[in-house]
Amino acid sequence: MSSSTHATLGVRQAQKLKTRQALLDAALRLLEEQSLSSLGLREVTRVVGVAPAAFYRHFRDMAELGVALVEESLGSLHVMIRAVLAEQQEAEEVIDRSVEAVADHVRRHPAHVRFIARERHGGVRAVREAIAAELARFGEEVAAALAAQEVSQGWSAEDVRMLAGLYVDHLVMTASAFLEASPEEGQAIADTARRQLRLISLGRRHWRAA
Amino acid sequence: MSSSTHATLGVRQAQKLKTRQALLDAALRLLEEQSLSSLGLREVTRVVGVAPAAFYRHFRDMAELGVALVEESLGSLHVMIRAVLAEQQEAEEVIDRSVEAVADHVRRHPAHVRFIARERHGGVRAVREAIAAELARFGEEVAAALAAQEVSQGWSAEDVRMLAGLYVDHLVMTASAFLEASPEEGQAIADTARRQLRLISLGRRHWRAA
Repeated sequence: MSSSTHATLGVRQAQKLKTRQALLDAALRLLEEQSLSSLGLREVTRVVGVAPAAFYRHFRDMAELGVALVEESLGSLHVMIRAVLAEQQEAEEVIDRSVEAVADHVRRHPAHVRFIARERHGGVRAVREAIAAELARFGEEVAAALAAQEVSQGWSAEDVRMLAGLYVDHLVMTASAFLEASPEEGQAIADTARRQLRLISLGRRHWRAA
Repeated sequence: MSSSTHATLGVRQAQKLKTRQALLDAALRLLEEQSLSSLGLREVTRVVGVAPAAFYRHFRDMAELGVALVEESLGSLHVMIRAVLAEQQEAEEVIDRSVEAVADHVRRHPAHVRFIARERHGGVRAVREAIAAELARFGEEVAAALAAQEVSQGWSAEDVRMLAGLYVDHLVMTASAFLEASPEEGQAIADTARRQLRLISLGRRHWRAA
């Protein structure tokens, strides 16, 4: 293979990835107004300016595009929360940083957060299952981080998972609240979320006495 | 007005209510497969077997029908949870009854629960707002019940609302989990939910020391 063939393949590959991303971006925009189960692939390709048949070079169907959007939506949140959890700081500071991280994530990716909130119980099974799987994986990561902390000594693995589930659910609910809130309401939501996390943290410290 | 005219009006009124309920039931069934923003009123009237124009004798538009479904969905849950909260029992027993009440509600009204879960962040603003208002009203009721309990002595109204919010969010997440679960998974979800409520209850008892 000559180096010019290589270069050509590289350009083609880059172009293909660019079109794929354009399809994902267009679908995400269109999904602000409708659900995935009613979104037609022609609407998506029209926005991108490619022929309908071109869709199939990137995705088998809309469900597969939806699953790709799930990965895009939850991937960056994973990275962020893992970084927060790994820090060895005072509980109070970890709480502040977690809430700030969620608020920041919703501010920067509102369309992704809305997509997850809507399609979590939406009409496309493959997407529902992908979201459930991502959140479960997220729960496992939080559980691993919690298990490594001193306050978890003596806890059963089941109890650590129970607590991780509570944190993940709280995060999802807080993200939902930020999503529907005006900027002024955002401050009150953050304040409530911090106090709720403090209460959970108190319950955690007294759990062994239960 | 003769008594026969009275009887005629009564029959008409009953017929009208029957058609209204048939429209609500048909819409709820159709919404298992699609979102409210994509549901056409002709689809709904076709299922019921009335002319499309008949729709407007009952609802101004699909958004108004959606709001009526919100009331139908959350009304019965209100009544039930209020009854659980009013009981003066051991915390442990209240927790068991709450989780059982949620499980029972999801078992009996899965389509209603799914509708709320989907449309909470769905494409119809009036319906999103109606759900938010119902959940807020729900939070107020839980706060009032919590405030009346001895363990809340010395709590600020703001902290009681914070705790009520945590309970309502937990209830919503537990209902969502039951919704997607197989019957075998249901037992594990109930068990986790009970332990989470115990941990929150522990945090509550130690809150004043915070």
